[in-house]
Amino acid sequence: MSRKIRIGVIGSGYMGKAHAIAYTAAATVFDLDVELVCEMLCTTTAEGAKADAKRLGFRRSTDDWRVLISDPDVDAINISTPPFTHLEMGLAALDAGKPVFCEKPLAMSAADALSLTERAEETGVPTMVGYNYIKHPSAQLATEIVHSGEIGEVLHFAGTHIEDYFHDADAPANWRVQQRTASRAGALSDVGTHIVNAMLRVAGPVERLVADTDIAYPTRPANDGAALTVENDDQVQFMVRFESGAMGSIHASRVAAGKKMGYSFTVTGTKGSVAFDLEQPGEVHLFSASDDAARSGFKRILTGPEHPDYMNFCLGAAHGFGYNDMIMIEARDFVTAIVEQKPVWPTFRDGYDVDRIVDAVLRSKDEERWVRIDEI
Amino acid sequence: MSRKIRIGVIGSGYMGKAHAIAYTAAATVFDLDVELVCEMLCTTTAEGAKADAKRLGFRRSTDDWRVLISDPDVDAINISTPPFTHLEMGLAALDAGKPVFCEKPLAMSAADALSLTERAEETGVPTMVGYNYIKHPSAQLATEIVHSGEIGEVLHFAGTHIEDYFHDADAPANWRVQQRTASRAGALSDVGTHIVNAMLRVAGPVERLVADTDIAYPTRPANDGAALTVENDDQVQFMVRFESGAMGSIHASRVAAGKKMGYSFTVTGTKGSVAFDLEQPGEVHLFSASDDAARSGFKRILTGPEHPDYMNFCLGAAHGFGYNDMIMIEARDFVTAIVEQKPVWPTFRDGYDVDRIVDAVLRSKDEERWVRIDEI
Amino acid sequence: MSRKIRIGVIGSGYMGKAHAIAYTAAATVFDLDVELVCEMLCTTTAEGAKADAKRLGFRRSTDDWRVLISDPDVDAINISTPPFTHLEMGLAALDAGKPVFCEKPLAMSAADALSLTERAEETGVPTMVGYNYIKHPSAQLATEIVHSGEIGEVLHFAGTHIEDYFHDADAPANWRVQQRTASRAGALSDVGTHIVNAMLRVAGPVERLVADTDIAYPTRPANDGAALTVENDDQVQFMVRFESGAMGSIHASRVAAGKKMGYSFTVTGTKGSVAFDLEQPGEVHLFSASDDAARSGFKRILTGPEHPDYMNFCLGAAHGFGYNDMIMIEARDFVTAIVEQKPVWPTFRDGYDVDRIVDAVLRSKDEERWVRIDEI
Amino acid sequence: MSRKIRIGVIGSGYMGKAHAIAYTAAATVFDLDVELVCEMLCTTTAEGAKADAKRLGFRRSTDDWRVLISDPDVDAINISTPPFTHLEMGLAALDAGKPVFCEKPLAMSAADALSLTERAEETGVPTMVGYNYIKHPSAQLATEIVHSGEIGEVLHFAGTHIEDYFHDADAPANWRVQQRTASRAGALSDVGTHIVNAMLRVAGPVERLVADTDIAYPTRPANDGAALTVENDDQVQFMVRFESGAMGSIHASRVAAGKKMGYSFTVTGTKGSVAFDLEQPGEVHLFSASDDAARSGFKRILTGPEHPDYMNFCLGAAHGFGYNDMIMIEARDFVTAIVEQKPVWPTFRDGYDVDRIVDAVLRSKDEERWVRIDEI
Repeated sequence: MSRKIRIGVIGSGYMGKAHAIAYTAAATVFDLDVELVCEMLCTTTAEGAKADAKRLGFRRSTDDWRVLISDPDVDAINISTPPFTHLEMGLAALDAGKPVFCEKPLAMSAADALSLTERAEETGVPTMVGYNYIKHPSAQLATEIVHSGEIGEVLHFAGTHIEDYFHDADAPANWRVQQRTASRAGALSDVGTHIVNAMLRVAGPVERLVADTDIAYPTRPANDGAALTVENDDQVQFMVRFESGAMGSIHASRVAAGKKMGYSFTVTGTKGSVAFDLEQPGEVHLFSASDDAARSGFKRILTGPEHPDYMNFCLGAAHGFGYNDMIMIEARDFVTAIVEQKPVWPTFRDGYDVDRIVDAVLRSKDEERWVRIDEI
Repeated sequence: MSRKIRIGVIGSGYMGKAHAIAYTAAATVFDLDVELVCEMLCTTTAEGAKADAKRLGFRRSTDDWRVLISDPDVDAINISTPPFTHLEMGLAALDAGKPVFCEKPLAMSAADALSLTERAEETGVPTMVGYNYIKHPSAQLATEIVHSGEIGEVLHFAGTHIEDYFHDADAPANWRVQQRTASRAGALSDVGTHIVNAMLRVAGPVERLVADTDIAYPTRPANDGAALTVENDDQVQFMVRFESGAMGSIHASRVAAGKKMGYSFTVTGTKGSVAFDLEQPGEVHLFSASDDAARSGFKRILTGPEHPDYMNFCLGAAHGFGYNDMIMIEARDFVTAIVEQKPVWPTFRDGYDVDRIVDAVLRSKDEERWVRIDEI
Repeated sequence: MSRKIRIGVIGSGYMGKAHAIAYTAAATVFDLDVELVCEMLCTTTAEGAKADAKRLGFRRSTDDWRVLISDPDVDAINISTPPFTHLEMGLAALDAGKPVFCEKPLAMSAADALSLTERAEETGVPTMVGYNYIKHPSAQLATEIVHSGEIGEVLHFAGTHIEDYFHDADAPANWRVQQRTASRAGALSDVGTHIVNAMLRVAGPVERLVADTDIAYPTRPANDGAALTVENDDQVQFMVRFESGAMGSIHASRVAAGKKMGYSFTVTGTKGSVAFDLEQPGEVHLFSASDDAARSGFKRILTGPEHPDYMNFCLGAAHGFGYNDMIMIEARDFVTAIVEQKPVWPTFRDGYDVDRIVDAVLRSKDEERWVRIDEI
Repeated sequence: MSRKIRIGVIGSGYMGKAHAIAYTAAATVFDLDVELVCEMLCTTTAEGAKADAKRLGFRRSTDDWRVLISDPDVDAINISTPPFTHLEMGLAALDAGKPVFCEKPLAMSAADALSLTERAEETGVPTMVGYNYIKHPSAQLATEIVHSGEIGEVLHFAGTHIEDYFHDADAPANWRVQQRTASRAGALSDVGTHIVNAMLRVAGPVERLVADTDIAYPTRPANDGAALTVENDDQVQFMVRFESGAMGSIHASRVAAGKKMGYSFTVTGTKGSVAFDLEQPGEVHLFSASDDAARSGFKRILTGPEHPDYMNFCLGAAHGFGYNDMIMIEARDFVTAIVEQKPVWPTFRDGYDVDRIVDAVLRSKDEERWVRIDEI
């Protein structure tokens, strides 16, 4: 008989729902020999938690995350709450000896991320951070193309994650614009960490960087109409040198008018180039320098069953791949980590590596200079 | 307490799995006040059915579709088998008084489709045909733009559904190329009916058409290596006049080298145009003739929470929409039809309308002339 | 010393200017060992002709095209006037023994085109018809890819030339909408002949076709505000079978909202596919079926110095190719025909082949049936 | 009678030919009331100059640029030689009181560019620098959209000019890789200055920047097969702050595999965004934040006669715009400057502004710090 894993999810917002869908369907999609149970949902009020649990298909609910973590019938913890909660919840879950999936970014600072990482490594509990976009089959394909050496040595990595969810100056402020709830990093934390994670995954560790950040709109209306100070970056850009010597650049923004999912990267190598843009998610563009000059060009590869993790969802190429499908891949990975008791990328340490970059960016901005990652 | 609907699915291939995923997750995605149960799965052998039921999360299994249909704990029937089975299964399900979802095309001929339709209307049982692509939020948006009058009166509809799954002359034959199992229609039936359905949905009823069909490769290797005769079209094209007087064209193919999901339509109207191509599924292109000439052009609208059925899956625009997500919309629609006991598009009658076009195409080819739909 | 060719151009509108630019610059672009002289310009009034000649750099002018044709210092004739003038002018030029370049379409009917063709072949005078788009380096590359066999045997050709210059129902009528000045063919003649010419060039001779034409707006305002009857098609579509057995389709329109240069073709073959769209003129898309499935896709080839006729204009790929550059290629071809006294494609006979298709389309529409080209 | 301007061109390579074509056709294209004469061509050997003059349509030739500059029948000077020659030639031409067009970049250093600029301003002679891409109608349209305020205040400018002409490590070295003939700047000078010029034109003056440069391949084979040291950057990236406070970034490369004309910029403003990419040269993409959310998106505007400088070339939109057409616009501008004796953008001072950025980039790299432009 198949093993049962009972999940407790903290947070019932945007990501909480996505994870609920994922845990519900992942076993069918991947033919997992595991029964995934949405055991308990936690959110801020008991009443809300009860309603959300019913809506999202959880068996039980609570308004106390400590109750959820310590519940004997909760086998694994999913933290889908804002960043300022991750440290405390994560440590508690690790101390309870339960596998932890934590939404990105891992923590409010590299120091906090390191605490979580070290505790995880001490306890040996499986961990994972929720960097989902890099798990899209197209993103995996682009990564595979780089790692396989098909485009040779990397010469340049250009990454963006630009959206416009705060482009409207009159859009009401929320927890994302304040240091206490988000962190000193704004777009950098919210979307930038996704593309930083991709950069590290695809092109390897960074040696140093120089950064600039900007607040486009210094205040925003709060829900009560008062002007609220925006405390972190609306847009950020930085340049890196990888340990390999390659160059790179990152641009992240929440005020990039017209961009809805501008998560993209282009990797230039000595034998070719590869590019991916999540706004046209079903395709990867590959240039091979060895092609005959009169027949060379970027090839638009439509992702399909020949590519990583696609076949489980559909047997036909280019039939569409959804947001929740990426979350299902994460669920499969998290379950794999639990069942096999082995690290599955990205672990808390990988999340810490991202947060170090964030800290380095902020320091570079503060001190207006190149910063080495090993300073952090 | 929420109502429970127990589904029996016949067929555990490609579509069977997709429906299993859909029934598993639909209630969470759409916050349905219904509990959907994957009750029973039927496939050709008892052993296979048992294994597939376990893999796909069904409670029970059988190798006899009549058993499934008559089982008292099966509330609704999902037919996900090849076309030649639809008539008999569909009639049996209707006679059992159970709501029926049937994969497209509805039947092997317009006559069979009409039998199913009339029986459904006599019994009053809710029915639905599995035309999923038109339920993609982007396709729904394009449809909405036409129906709202935003582009004025339709002047032209150009539709394609072209793929290359049989482009390779050495690809082994299967049930799709034989009249007994597929029908006299090949690509026309397999992919063409999807875009015919879209055409009727978007631009209205057809008055007459003239068609041509072609078998590119007269034989294909069977699994045993022998040459098998290809009995239906590899590619088809036809021109229509709608009852409105507008012109239209359809191109369907299973040998369109390089096309993986060439389901597309462009509608030209007196006030603008709209275009959709499922190979770039997250976007709809809209041209408004009233724009200032120096600032006019096709606008690339990225589908998001402002658009039909998207928000249930994700709150961010352009975050991806998957194949199985479309099937979940179908599941939601089927459930709605059952719960509310009212027809939800596309019913068997809508499926019959598609099959009439198929018959008219074949007759036009046979007789090398324009054929009026009311001849069928 | 280099040979001098003195050109007389009839017509000073849109095309007259383009040819003037082309004759002025072609020798420099192509390093021709010929001096091209814009000798004489003819338009409807003496005064206008004089002004236009000054503006466009012609040495002399006239309001009588017979004077131009018979002038002893005019070596070659360029007819850039509306179609209803081509027959008389063309015959006169041929009778004068002077090489003739004639704008497309060659004539008002296949019969007239045949008269011109037979006279040209009797006299042995070099002729050319102004089908310029197919001479774009990208269109030439796409053609070369088909002719070389790179995509195998042709299975399907889909061509369009759709624009929206008459989409606005209130756009004033001009000579293009009347049978006397344009012909019984409207968009079919004006833009359709371009893509018919491409079809014949790329995929070979047509055996039969079935067509439909439509007038979207039955009247248009004349310059004096009165309603003028539109006498020829606003949009047309037809399906063909090539002599090779391949299928094809054509769509032409002058009411295709949002399309400005929808000259495109996609050719599907047994070994791959190639596509070209003049709205993105610098690129050709090539799919090779022999690529590894996990790395296959349409390759976007940016036209450059490796491709036909590009290098004369620029040494860098994708640096832009202009409308007048195509006309310069035509000028080079016409000069080559004159200097070498040999036919250069497309001759009057090639223009006649296009006009036969036009006549067949009109007959198919009149008689609502498939028409064989050899009936024309 | 129209005025005659006799041009002397120094250099008969790539750019020399382009300018010869431009001077030949510009009067016809723009209906200039000026006769442009290709009077004299200068290149390194007398024999070569004679042959090239014949090929390109010049009346006379020389191997001594001083002879060309001082020739009394040469009215204006066009310098189309590598950068290391610009200072001396430019000063000589200015001292001769003759209008000077100089290819980009203006000089080998900001200091040299300043010398040229100051001499030009002392003498009052019209000058121009050959930044042609920004004169493409699409680039002009994008510029106009920013300057008109249609997208509000600029928040971010992202520019690239990336190509792959030196991506092949075995491609033979030429003057472009050596400091003596090109400058300390490689890709930065060769292509980077084009996009720097666009940045300054579109988004205004820069206050400070931080830069990184890289040599991907330290040596290249010389023509004799020996390894030649590459002395300047293969790729460069830098971040800027404009005086307005907006952020910006530039990426230039000659090793960007697959990119043939990656001259692109995206400008994000408080009311919208605009993007242009010369690899799809006929289109500009405009996003207006004031559009209804459900109908918003980037609008693909196809450049046509409604847009700057297009109508002179063709009356139909999206009919193609060539490399030499851009050079003709430059010729028209240069002639305008001469005839009207007034500065026409970009003058030597504008060229100096670009070269200051280049110097600042090199200093930022040397000193690994942010550099203010007013330090240069």
